[in-house]
Amino acid sequence: MNESAFRAKLAEAAAAIERTLDAELALEPHPGEPARPKRLVEAMRYATLAGGKRLRPFLVIETARALGRADDGPVRAGAGIECLHAYSLIHDDLPSMDDDDLRRGRPTVHRAYDEATAILAGDALQTLAFQILADPTTDPNAETRARLCAGLARASGLAGMVGGQMLDLLAEKSEPLPLEEIARLQAMKTGALLSFSVEAGALLAGATAPATTALEAYGGALGAAFQVADDLLDAEGDEAALGKRAGKDAGRGKATLVSALGVVGAREELGRLVAKAKAAVDAAGLGSEGDMLRAAAEFVAARKN
Amino acid sequence: MNESAFRAKLAEAAAAIERTLDAELALEPHPGEPARPKRLVEAMRYATLAGGKRLRPFLVIETARALGRADDGPVRAGAGIECLHAYSLIHDDLPSMDDDDLRRGRPTVHRAYDEATAILAGDALQTLAFQILADPTTDPNAETRARLCAGLARASGLAGMVGGQMLDLLAEKSEPLPLEEIARLQAMKTGALLSFSVEAGALLAGATAPATTALEAYGGALGAAFQVADDLLDAEGDEAALGKRAGKDAGRGKATLVSALGVVGAREELGRLVAKAKAAVDAAGLGSEGDMLRAAAEFVAARKN
Repeated sequence: MNESAFRAKLAEAAAAIERTLDAELALEPHPGEPARPKRLVEAMRYATLAGGKRLRPFLVIETARALGRADDGPVRAGAGIECLHAYSLIHDDLPSMDDDDLRRGRPTVHRAYDEATAILAGDALQTLAFQILADPTTDPNAETRARLCAGLARASGLAGMVGGQMLDLLAEKSEPLPLEEIARLQAMKTGALLSFSVEAGALLAGATAPATTALEAYGGALGAAFQVADDLLDAEGDEAALGKRAGKDAGRGKATLVSALGVVGAREELGRLVAKAKAAVDAAGLGSEGDMLRAAAEFVAARKN
Repeated sequence: MNESAFRAKLAEAAAAIERTLDAELALEPHPGEPARPKRLVEAMRYATLAGGKRLRPFLVIETARALGRADDGPVRAGAGIECLHAYSLIHDDLPSMDDDDLRRGRPTVHRAYDEATAILAGDALQTLAFQILADPTTDPNAETRARLCAGLARASGLAGMVGGQMLDLLAEKSEPLPLEEIARLQAMKTGALLSFSVEAGALLAGATAPATTALEAYGGALGAAFQVADDLLDAEGDEAALGKRAGKDAGRGKATLVSALGVVGAREELGRLVAKAKAAVDAAGLGSEGDMLRAAAEFVAARKN
């Protein structure tokens, strides 16, 4: 697949996600709601409607599509996962965490609003993620909705994303971690939610058990590739493209694969992971209908921001 | 019902909740989990296993029991709701929010650990709340689990608990709010989760639609009574019994019903709300099997901490 075809699909998914989030985060209360505090909704909109690649929703949508489901359900589930991702960025940027002033070239939420509003906007975005996944308009099958909620919780809680962030903060103050521990930390912090995005697409499309297993392997390899690429960008990237400070992770002793493997070793690892992801798409029994997922693995490895 | 019978049931529910949370928050990873960061789990345990009345789980358990369900499902759902409540307390206590050093007579989580750990422990407790509600061991019926997740999200998100906390923070900086706005703010901040606890019990017990409607009214009145009693305690209470500073809400211009109604007016309102709650138990068709819910309304109004 050529890159412009891939980018067109990525933009199409991003537009669908923007529309869904714009409606979910309307300033006026939804039917039955007593009120929506304007400042809170504005901060939630600021954090979620400012563009971004929407890679996680793309994975939900394209995994479901590869397996034959192309209605609005995967878009809604993707929007829910994007809310979860946005909450994690808001909280990670806080002064007591990574203390970042910029995100995608704009002031972070606590700089644009204030710290209390940022904490609450993150909290409410996490809640909204589960609200969207549990809503009957996302899928008519309650078993699917309950499994989406359980899966998101597993990927994002103390043994997933939040646990990974805790390990990352602890690593800043410790001796350099061995390679396996860095990989585990990153699998929890970033990989789990990327991988769950693929699982969610498979679940929504009613994938068979063997296809689901293969797609979980795809999600795991893609998540790992994403993180290696991220570490390479931090080590080599330029700030204008990143929209945030480069070199900041290494500068504060964050655990990165580049510090453990070197740039050349990390590039080799990235190549292996992309190959593994593509092989998993084959193993899921997907022919040309899986090309968008194969292209996503290439894209993740080659991204410039 | 005499008070000691009520207190025995409250203690029984609290013990069941402690057991469930102790297992959910085991230091060792659960099967299939890559890791549980020790410091994070310890902070989550510190926040959830330090006693407390466990009023919300009690309402889940006793509502379900009044309607004929007395197995472990309502205990698990109650534990999930307690995780949600605990997360809200951790975040509300943070320096950028209410900036409290003490909670139930002990250092707050960010004082006992640090601010980043407190934010993450709160985040992961919110996630765990949904994880428990979505888990098949809480209820075999996926429709019930999905509705529990959706209901918890509605009660606790931007149009519920978190929205109420945002309005409360904004109220500190504004002109005194009119009575109806204080009532709405409190219904969102505190009432919604108390009320959902009753709804969850009704849902788990498969209540009829009319009984559910009546029990929702019970939950609403009980939640409002809880908040009036809370404001009276803040205005009149002593710090030793409260385990936190008294008079702090009025002192920083928080919106309270006592400042709007006066102490006498607030006591009268409390009496009306208790009567309304008890009448709703009758309307739900509950005879003596509803006595524990009636006693809960009395207890909420008469509590000393």
